[in-house]
Amino acid sequence: MAHEQALTQLETLLGDRLRRSDAERAAHGQNEAHFPDALPDAVAYPKTTEEVAAIMRIAHAEAMPVTAYGTGTSLEGHHLPVQGGLTLDLSLMNRILAVHDADMDVVVQPGVTRTQLNDELRATGLYFPIDPGADASLGGMAATRASGTMAVRYGTMRENVLALEAVLADGRVIRTGSRARKSSSGYDLTHLLIGSEGTLGIITELTLKLHGQPESIVAATCRFPTVEDAVNCVITTIQTGIPMARIELVNATMVRGFNRASNAGMPEEPHLFLEFSGSETAVEEQSAMFEEIAADFDAQDFKRATRMEERNALWAMRHNGHHASKALYPGKRILATDVCVPISQLAEAVTAAEGKARELGLEPVIVGHVGDGNFHTGIGFNREDPAELAMIETFSAHLAETALRLGGTVSGEHGIGLGKRKYMEAEHGPALVPMRAIKAAMDPKGILNPGKLLP
Amino acid sequence: MAHEQALTQLETLLGDRLRRSDAERAAHGQNEAHFPDALPDAVAYPKTTEEVAAIMRIAHAEAMPVTAYGTGTSLEGHHLPVQGGLTLDLSLMNRILAVHDADMDVVVQPGVTRTQLNDELRATGLYFPIDPGADASLGGMAATRASGTMAVRYGTMRENVLALEAVLADGRVIRTGSRARKSSSGYDLTHLLIGSEGTLGIITELTLKLHGQPESIVAATCRFPTVEDAVNCVITTIQTGIPMARIELVNATMVRGFNRASNAGMPEEPHLFLEFSGSETAVEEQSAMFEEIAADFDAQDFKRATRMEERNALWAMRHNGHHASKALYPGKRILATDVCVPISQLAEAVTAAEGKARELGLEPVIVGHVGDGNFHTGIGFNREDPAELAMIETFSAHLAETALRLGGTVSGEHGIGLGKRKYMEAEHGPALVPMRAIKAAMDPKGILNPGKLLP
Ligand SMILES: Cc1cc2nc3c(=O)[nH]c(=O)nc-3n(C[C@H](O)[C@H](O)[C@H](O)COP(=O)(O)OP(=O)(O)OC[C@H]3O[C@@H](n4cnc5c(N)ncnc54)[C@H](O)[C@@H]3O)c2cc1C
Ligand SMILES: Cc1cc2nc3c(=O)[nH]c(=O)nc-3n(C[C@H](O)[C@H](O)[C@H](O)COP(=O)(O)OP(=O)(O)OC[C@H]3O[C@@H](n4cnc5c(N)ncnc54)[C@H](O)[C@@H]3O)c2cc1C
Repeated sequence: MAHEQALTQLETLLGDRLRRSDAERAAHGQNEAHFPDALPDAVAYPKTTEEVAAIMRIAHAEAMPVTAYGTGTSLEGHHLPVQGGLTLDLSLMNRILAVHDADMDVVVQPGVTRTQLNDELRATGLYFPIDPGADASLGGMAATRASGTMAVRYGTMRENVLALEAVLADGRVIRTGSRARKSSSGYDLTHLLIGSEGTLGIITELTLKLHGQPESIVAATCRFPTVEDAVNCVITTIQTGIPMARIELVNATMVRGFNRASNAGMPEEPHLFLEFSGSETAVEEQSAMFEEIAADFDAQDFKRATRMEERNALWAMRHNGHHASKALYPGKRILATDVCVPISQLAEAVTAAEGKARELGLEPVIVGHVGDGNFHTGIGFNREDPAELAMIETFSAHLAETALRLGGTVSGEHGIGLGKRKYMEAEHGPALVPMRAIKAAMDPKGILNPGKLLP
Repeated sequence: MAHEQALTQLETLLGDRLRRSDAERAAHGQNEAHFPDALPDAVAYPKTTEEVAAIMRIAHAEAMPVTAYGTGTSLEGHHLPVQGGLTLDLSLMNRILAVHDADMDVVVQPGVTRTQLNDELRATGLYFPIDPGADASLGGMAATRASGTMAVRYGTMRENVLALEAVLADGRVIRTGSRARKSSSGYDLTHLLIGSEGTLGIITELTLKLHGQPESIVAATCRFPTVEDAVNCVITTIQTGIPMARIELVNATMVRGFNRASNAGMPEEPHLFLEFSGSETAVEEQSAMFEEIAADFDAQDFKRATRMEERNALWAMRHNGHHASKALYPGKRILATDVCVPISQLAEAVTAAEGKARELGLEPVIVGHVGDGNFHTGIGFNREDPAELAMIETFSAHLAETALRLGGTVSGEHGIGLGKRKYMEAEHGPALVPMRAIKAAMDPKGILNPGKLLP
């Protein structure tokens, strides 16, 4: 087997936390999306930064690929060890190291998941708002620059990580940033690591900004005659400056999925799912302002959910969108696009997606963090069928092009991984040269998650 | 003369926009701070990105140092061409290229200054809030990751730049980021360039986030028996979550400076300078909450300034702090420290600064963007006197150490330049290795602002 020498050394280091069984390898070689399985030679479960450093020293000496693994929920095949080698599963590094409530920050290991963190924080009156739906690891979320439903109010991982500890390709341990809220000291390695998809270093500790739990939260839904009405309502809402906590689009097809997957009993029309938060007066004011705008776009059935259970049920349904899409396409895989455009261009981008889908005879799910100009179209397809694969390619490429033409990006939040590498040249052009130079400088042997992010 | 061949080529390219007079060289070789003058061989005034690219190609071929120059207000000698070569003055690249009010962003050339931008934006209802006091260029502000009085509410340049165009060391033109509000596409070169002090590339275009002009703005001042009371009042205010627009500390010595420089007629005691903004109700609510907290810390003389002229006069006085400090130390240069710590550690950091100053027989000005945990101590000294220089070194080193011990950074906003390089090892340790690797990868000949940032 490849890398036998390195793996033997790792066995000595980790004992039964180095696993080579078929089951372990298979579990780490599959993905939520449509990419073919790719199995690691072995899976390591480090418990400390020192162990990660020792693992990287061994891997570096033996030029063995190392792919970090949080919870494996990434949607572009990011965590698939396409060149074999070692999967570094960080799930045992799941301790919350320090809660600094006076400074509203928290220090965690990378395997802590966001629900674990928020459960622990409940009593403090603080919380971590970034919510990608999946119960992802915070290390994985930083590595993919994740965001989700609440980014419209709180920003993404980009805005909410203060400091990192990371192990570089050669086993060197570095710290980036600090607990100070701002700094002009040196190159911003924190932001370089955020979104680097495990290709520049292994994140072993994160210091995150926390936010106060709002005094009052009200969720709501309303429906619109067309997706365009819903989107135009969002654009006006954002431009009016209403500080929405969440503003999510779901199209009629998605509602049909919800009805099938969770018996939602909703009218099969486009909806917005909303959340208002703040002081009680602020929430009332915001929701009244929103209702007025929504009426201009023919919204109906404005329904509020104030009790926590109702709100949770609403967001659980929304977050289940990916799985509900599967219910619409039994036995198929889902392609999820992820473009993001300036808010003024959102209606055009969504219209372009719908138009191209119609042209190809597709009936896609559309869901979106539309307050940020970000939306996903989900299309079921058979990954063994070349014709369906080609159609998916055409659709996805058209959307990527449209987003770039409108001043946007091919990925708002899922990242590049395997699936979006083909659009990197179109999006970044000459900027790929410094990206490649940085990768080569920080990982000269190319052992960190090879085959990802850069085309 | 050095680089004669390169300079001849530049003369052909730029005509009289390549200047070699002693006056031009001297103007670009001095600094606001205490660093010795350092003159470039010539000063170039490009007007377009293409010209910057052509200049860099020539400089790269001839291995001539190139130091970008915005308005030369940086406080750590950043813009001093300590190895000679070319100063690239971007002041002629001062056009506002596009205002996208629907998306609340603006595209500018790097030589646009922040007051120029806000003058142009006035009619749109939008503005760019980052305010370092000095009327700096936006390119220089991005290059130093600047912030200032309003960062407590709006963040720093780090949070307010969406996209950049930059020319790399070899003349290659790249674009980073996009007008989309978020992206997970590729390495975050935007943040790598922000704060890179002209050592990784020349910024030739910036896309900046704008914010709505607040409906209502009220400025205020109040005084405290001691600096500690004022600082503790700030800590409680921030922890209470009052969304302060500005919250600035000035100590008794600074007030004496204001009295001398602008006949302020203020009692010579520690003060906070405040600003509240938002809807009229929000402003009233915030200022009432603040007054209640301030009373607990024995604040007196809470004075409100609602008219624009009054407010402007107040902030002009505050922004004039550096010059008012000079009035206290006639004929001397001012050392301005710039540490930033987690807010819970602010009182300890300020106390340490005062203690060390007392021990050394100094009576420093203290001003600070204390809502972010950032403050400056200003001390006048004679840069020709070795004893005074040594004393300044001792004081500055003690503060840097204290900040790092308290989990902070040696520079909250001014940057590293020449002056803070000696603390980089203590702050970043092994992280200097990837920083150096990135510099070498992006500027292998070391021609971009050599001698800065990295020790
Ligand atoms: C149902 C569903 C809904 C989703 N919704 C959203 C959404 O709304 N918004 C959104 O942004 N994403 C969403 N995602 C995608 C996914 O949840 C995110 O990409 C998430 O950040 C991945 O985290 P993870 O822990 O699962 O990482 P993994 O999938 O395990 O890994 C992702 C990448 O990060 C790297 N990595 C993991 N841990 C580390 C580490 N410690 N150091 C360095 N690199 C590391 C891996 O090598 C890999 O390249 C969704 C996914 C699903 C399945
Ligand atoms: C009175 C006074 C008060 C101040 N208050 C504050 C404050 O509150 N907050 C704060 O953050 N700063 C403050 N400063 C410092 C200063 O204003 C900032 O550092 C400012 O960002 C410098 O901008 P500039 O245009 O003058 O840049 P310069 O001084 O000309 O250059 C600064 C650095 O940026 C590089 N650079 C300039 N333009 C570019 C470009 N286009 N591309 C790449 N690199 C470039 C230069 O090479 C140099 O390294 C203050 C300064 C003064 C004099």
